[in-house]
Amino acid sequence: MKTINLLGATGSIGLQTLDIIRNHPASFRLSSFSAGRQEKAAEAIIREFKPKLVSVVEKETAERLQLSYPDVKVLYGKDGLEAVAVDGAADTLVNAVIGSVGLEPTLKAIEAGKNIAIANKETLVTAGHIVTEAAQKAGVELLPVDSEHSAIFQSLQGEKAKNISRLILTASGGSFRDRKREELQDVTVEETLNHPNWSMGAKITVDSATMMNKGLEVIEAHWLFNLPYEQIDVLLHRESIIHSMVEFHDRSVMAQLGSPDMRVPIQYALTWPDRLPLQGTKQLDLAEIGQLHFQKMDFGRYRMLHLAYEAGKTGGTMPAVMNAANEEAVAAFLDRKLSFLQIEEAVERAMENHTSIAAPDLGAILEADLQARATVRSLLR
Amino acid sequence: MKTINLLGATGSIGLQTLDIIRNHPASFRLSSFSAGRQEKAAEAIIREFKPKLVSVVEKETAERLQLSYPDVKVLYGKDGLEAVAVDGAADTLVNAVIGSVGLEPTLKAIEAGKNIAIANKETLVTAGHIVTEAAQKAGVELLPVDSEHSAIFQSLQGEKAKNISRLILTASGGSFRDRKREELQDVTVEETLNHPNWSMGAKITVDSATMMNKGLEVIEAHWLFNLPYEQIDVLLHRESIIHSMVEFHDRSVMAQLGSPDMRVPIQYALTWPDRLPLQGTKQLDLAEIGQLHFQKMDFGRYRMLHLAYEAGKTGGTMPAVMNAANEEAVAAFLDRKLSFLQIEEAVERAMENHTSIAAPDLGAILEADLQARATVRSLLR
Repeated sequence: MKTINLLGATGSIGLQTLDIIRNHPASFRLSSFSAGRQEKAAEAIIREFKPKLVSVVEKETAERLQLSYPDVKVLYGKDGLEAVAVDGAADTLVNAVIGSVGLEPTLKAIEAGKNIAIANKETLVTAGHIVTEAAQKAGVELLPVDSEHSAIFQSLQGEKAKNISRLILTASGGSFRDRKREELQDVTVEETLNHPNWSMGAKITVDSATMMNKGLEVIEAHWLFNLPYEQIDVLLHRESIIHSMVEFHDRSVMAQLGSPDMRVPIQYALTWPDRLPLQGTKQLDLAEIGQLHFQKMDFGRYRMLHLAYEAGKTGGTMPAVMNAANEEAVAAFLDRKLSFLQIEEAVERAMENHTSIAAPDLGAILEADLQARATVRSLLR
Repeated sequence: MKTINLLGATGSIGLQTLDIIRNHPASFRLSSFSAGRQEKAAEAIIREFKPKLVSVVEKETAERLQLSYPDVKVLYGKDGLEAVAVDGAADTLVNAVIGSVGLEPTLKAIEAGKNIAIANKETLVTAGHIVTEAAQKAGVELLPVDSEHSAIFQSLQGEKAKNISRLILTASGGSFRDRKREELQDVTVEETLNHPNWSMGAKITVDSATMMNKGLEVIEAHWLFNLPYEQIDVLLHRESIIHSMVEFHDRSVMAQLGSPDMRVPIQYALTWPDRLPLQGTKQLDLAEIGQLHFQKMDFGRYRMLHLAYEAGKTGGTMPAVMNAANEEAVAAFLDRKLSFLQIEEAVERAMENHTSIAAPDLGAILEADLQARATVRSLLR
C-alpha cells in the first residue's frame, strides 16, 4: 500500500491520478490533496477518498469546507500547500500543480524524505539544480510523469547511467507540424488549440505548437537524467507512439511505446519499480497504425526549441526567464494581445534583456521570473 | 574480466564473438573454442587468442594442430566439444554451433555452473524443457544471442515477469514478403537466398523466407521467457529496426531498436547486465530511415509459422520433429530436390506422421528427430 499526497488534484493530471488511486484501492491511498479554487471538486474528492488533510487557495473556502467536513483538516494558502506536501503518512508526493507555486512545497517534501512524482515542469526548469541536489541529499527519487520522461525513465530501468550515449525525446510537432514557418503568421488561437494527438490544457497545447513544450522537456531531461545538452536530441515523430528513447554506447536503443494515454506514465510513477494492470487504456496495435514517421528536427522552423537549448546551456536564471516570458507571452496570445510568432519574439527579447545569474537561490529565480514577465508586458503596450 | 568458452568459433556468430573479444581485451578472454572442420581458421584463432583448449571434429586435424601448437591442448569429436564447454576458467559458454550437436555440451556447461550465451536454436527448440530446468537448478542464466530474443531480454531488464502481458516478436517477412502465396510456387534457390535486411547463412535465410525461422524463435521465446504461446505474438515489420517488444499489463510497451548488426546482441549477451562501447556499428538514425512499417501476420500466407505454433503448443517431441523435418526439407530445397512450397508440405507431413511423446529425454528427442528426417527423405523418392 502506497500513501499519496497530491498537489493539484483538480487539474488534468490530478484527476487522472485520482482515477488510478480509485482503480487500485488495495495499492494506493490518498492521504492529502490541494484543490486550488475548485471547491465543488474538492468536496467530491473529500467524500470519495476520505483524506486526512486538504488545502485550498482561499481562507473562506477552507472555512466552509471545514464546517462541512469536520473529520478532515482543511488548510489554505501557501502554508496549506506545504502541509499537504509534507503530510506525514505519505510515501510519494504527486506534484501536479501548474506554475512555480509547486516549487517550495516540493522542496519541503523532498526534505521530508518523500519520493516526488513530478508533473510540474517549472520545478525542474527553473530550479533543477536546487531540486536535484536536494533529492540526492535526501536519497529520494524524482519520478517523471510526463510521457517523454517516463519513457526515458522506463528505458533506463536495469541500466547504468555511464552507458548512456544520448536521450532521444520524440515530438509530435504540435498543431502546425504540416505548415511552414511563413504560414504561421496569422494562425488563430482556435487553430493553435487543436492538437493532433493529445488532449491537454490551453497553455501546454500552445507550447506544443511553438515547440516550447519540448524545449522545457529538454531542460527537465537534463536535470532528471543528469546529462549535458549535447546528449539530448529531439526527433519529430508525428504519431506520438514511441514516447521517447535512450541510446546506449553499444548503439542499442531502448524505447517505450504506447497509445497516447497519460494514465500510463502517471501510474508508472506511482507503481515504480513495479507495474499494475491499467484498465480501459487502449492496447497498442502497431499493425493497425501501420506506419510510424520520423523526421529531423528543424531548429529554424521551431525557433523556440533553439531558444530552450540556449537557455539550458546558459543555465543559472536563464531557464526561469525563458519560462516566465513564455508564460506571459502565451497568456497574451490566448488573450489576443500577441500573434503566434510574437510569442517567440517576446521570449527572445526577455532572454536578450537578461544577464544570467549562476547557481541562483529561490529568491534570485523569483526575481528573474518577475523581470522577464515585466519585459514581456512592456512589449504589449 | 570475463572468460569465455566458444562452441562454433568459425561460423558467422562465432567470428563476430571473436571480433567482440578482440575489441575488448580488458573485458574478455577466450579460454577455449571448437572449430568444426576449419583447420586453417582454428590455427588463426589459436595464434591470435592463445586459448588453453581447442576442439575440432576429426582426430587427424587435432593431431596436426597439437604438433604445431604444443602449448594448447587440442581435442576432437564429441568429447572435445564437451571439454570446451565445461573448461574450468570460463564464466560464460557461447553456444554458436549449428544443429543439435550443441545440446549435450550445453547441458554439461550448465551443470558446471556457466552462464550460456545461446545462439543455437535447436538447443531450446528441441529440448527447451530439459535446458531451462537444468539452468534453473544450477542457477545460471540463459543469455539470448538472437536479435529478437536479445531485444526482449533487454526490454525485461529491471522488470518483473508477473507484469508481462505479451511478447511481440518482429519479423521482416523474408525474401518474399511482397509476394502472395500463389507467387511462391516456382521461386528459385537464388531468389530465396536474397534476404532484404540481414546477411546470414543459407539455411536461416530459407527459414526466414518460409517464416520457419520466426516459428523457431517463438518456441525459443516460450522457453527463454517462460510464457504460454497465447502470450507470444509475431508482427511483420519490414525494416527490422524494432528488434522485438514486450507489452506489460499496464499497456506500456518496451522495445529495443537498432541498425541490423548481430554484434549488438552478441556483445550484450557477453556484457550483461552491463554494456560496453561497440566500435564500427551504425548509429540508428530514425529520421534518415523516415518510416517504420507494421503489418498483421498472415498465418495463411506463412503456413510454417502456424505449424510452429502447433508444434510448440503440442510440445513433447513435436518441436524436435518439426525442426528435423525442416532441416531435411531445406537441405533438399537447396539441393533442388524440393520446391519452395514443398518444404512446408514435408514439415507438415512429418508432424502428421508423429505422435508426440511428452517430457522426452535426450534419447527420445533424438529418436523423434531421426524418424522425422526419414519421413522427409521418403518424400524425395
